[in-house]
Amino acid sequence: MVDTAGSPKRLSKDEVMALVDEHFPQVHEGNGRVTLESLAPMTAQVRMAYDPRSIRPGGTISGPSMFKLADFAVYAIILGELGAAALQAVTTNMTMNFLSRPQPGDMIAHARLIKLGKRLAVAEVELYSDGRPDMVAHATATYALPPAKS
Amino acid sequence: MVDTAGSPKRLSKDEVMALVDEHFPQVHEGNGRVTLESLAPMTAQVRMAYDPRSIRPGGTISGPSMFKLADFAVYAIILGELGAAALQAVTTNMTMNFLSRPQPGDMIAHARLIKLGKRLAVAEVELYSDGRPDMVAHATATYALPPAKS
Amino acid sequence: MVDTAGSPKRLSKDEVMALVDEHFPQVHEGNGRVTLESLAPMTAQVRMAYDPRSIRPGGTISGPSMFKLADFAVYAIILGELGAAALQAVTTNMTMNFLSRPQPGDMIAHARLIKLGKRLAVAEVELYSDGRPDMVAHATATYALPPAKS
Amino acid sequence: MVDTAGSPKRLSKDEVMALVDEHFPQVHEGNGRVTLESLAPMTAQVRMAYDPRSIRPGGTISGPSMFKLADFAVYAIILGELGAAALQAVTTNMTMNFLSRPQPGDMIAHARLIKLGKRLAVAEVELYSDGRPDMVAHATATYALPPAKS
Repeated sequence: MVDTAGSPKRLSKDEVMALVDEHFPQVHEGNGRVTLESLAPMTAQVRMAYDPRSIRPGGTISGPSMFKLADFAVYAIILGELGAAALQAVTTNMTMNFLSRPQPGDMIAHARLIKLGKRLAVAEVELYSDGRPDMVAHATATYALPPAKS
Repeated sequence: MVDTAGSPKRLSKDEVMALVDEHFPQVHEGNGRVTLESLAPMTAQVRMAYDPRSIRPGGTISGPSMFKLADFAVYAIILGELGAAALQAVTTNMTMNFLSRPQPGDMIAHARLIKLGKRLAVAEVELYSDGRPDMVAHATATYALPPAKS
Repeated sequence: MVDTAGSPKRLSKDEVMALVDEHFPQVHEGNGRVTLESLAPMTAQVRMAYDPRSIRPGGTISGPSMFKLADFAVYAIILGELGAAALQAVTTNMTMNFLSRPQPGDMIAHARLIKLGKRLAVAEVELYSDGRPDMVAHATATYALPPAKS
Repeated sequence: MVDTAGSPKRLSKDEVMALVDEHFPQVHEGNGRVTLESLAPMTAQVRMAYDPRSIRPGGTISGPSMFKLADFAVYAIILGELGAAALQAVTTNMTMNFLSRPQPGDMIAHARLIKLGKRLAVAEVELYSDGRPDMVAHATATYALPPAKS
């Protein structure tokens, strides 16, 4: 059934992950495989698996790994909203506040779009250590969207 | 001879890299080995070697890799200014603006501290593709410094 | 009755506004009187009255006015949590994303602390035009807290 | 004669201030009259006059006033580069780091564009108290540019 309230291009989380695995497989490498756990209009939840390579002194997760997780969560929402036409969306701004040291384990991102315009999308992301209540980091991200085809 | 104008704890770039290699060897893994090319009061230049794992669709360098480079450049300056006492300094804020797609090659960070307080250090970082004139990304970073020992 | 779950210094919204009116009356001047509409642990809602001086071409509210509103909302929560001891808290970072043009009318800030540490407090703030559903701007702010007295 | 190195639309500082005074006179109100002291390709220097209304407890200049100064300095450069066609440019992101308390006096902004794209312009701004060497605040700003007419 067509979601008449939203975009006809809206994708499921499996469709988004299929696009990512085809066009963007490197996201899983380097520091922690990512899984889109849920996707709903304007929001997503993403898990990043524990990877010893992303550990910093003291046993914590690295900042670049948290950047990757936050950035990917926003990208996934945008793909979910706009479909493959948005594969060329690019991050133009990322602001991260690091609040406490994450545990050495999986991390979870809760992301939501707060603006989906014609040219820019803006999102905020909360990062948690899996199973812990305190927010570990907070991010806001802006993506420039590819021009719509006419 | 003691540097009377600056901190008596100020380190050379070789001393900073020795600290990093001992306490923080993971920085070289994952997406591009880093080299502290120059270190002077309040400033540093850092090179990140090309690593195919940090490539994104279209042949560009990943955002997390650029985050790592910017973050490390600031950390190196702080170690240079404050010595091993600052190994526990932690990033509290990182704001990045991505300006253009980097080339698939080495990247260079030009970083400078704009504040070195008792509790916080603030820096700005310009990122370039090696040999290219246009700035690829700009970052501002805040580190919380460990309390001084009395 | 003492709030045993929270800080014994936690203040009511009237107590916070009394502190503000005594120590910080300028906040009401310049571009829109502010009112603390509600205050609860770690959150606050603040209204900024319409003021023709904060209007920009096209009838919208100025960025500096929105900065003032966001900044004040966070300050009010910190005063509510820590009392007069926190009057000297200072903003160290403010990141604002402007999402859409606000209406020429009152603006409402919904703010919450996402970290209240010993040295830093971090908050996020959503700004709305009164009575409108779409977020107009989003802010994250960091305050440096005055050292606790021993 | 056409300026073959730059934009044929590039304006002088007097032309920029004439546009501002016609379309944006409110910038002088509220908290400190602004003067474009110099304008050159991609850079500008702006002075904000001392105004008692922008004073905060302790005699310092308010955050919103510094926001206004930084934001205006970037807007002036954009008008200088693109002319009246850019009057509708809007700030989409402003990140400010506050480094030290400004003196109660004039403030000076040194701003430069680090990207002038078709859709976005990005700038960084250093703020000083007039006559003092230490940077008081640092800002990065993004403007969305109006679509070019075809």
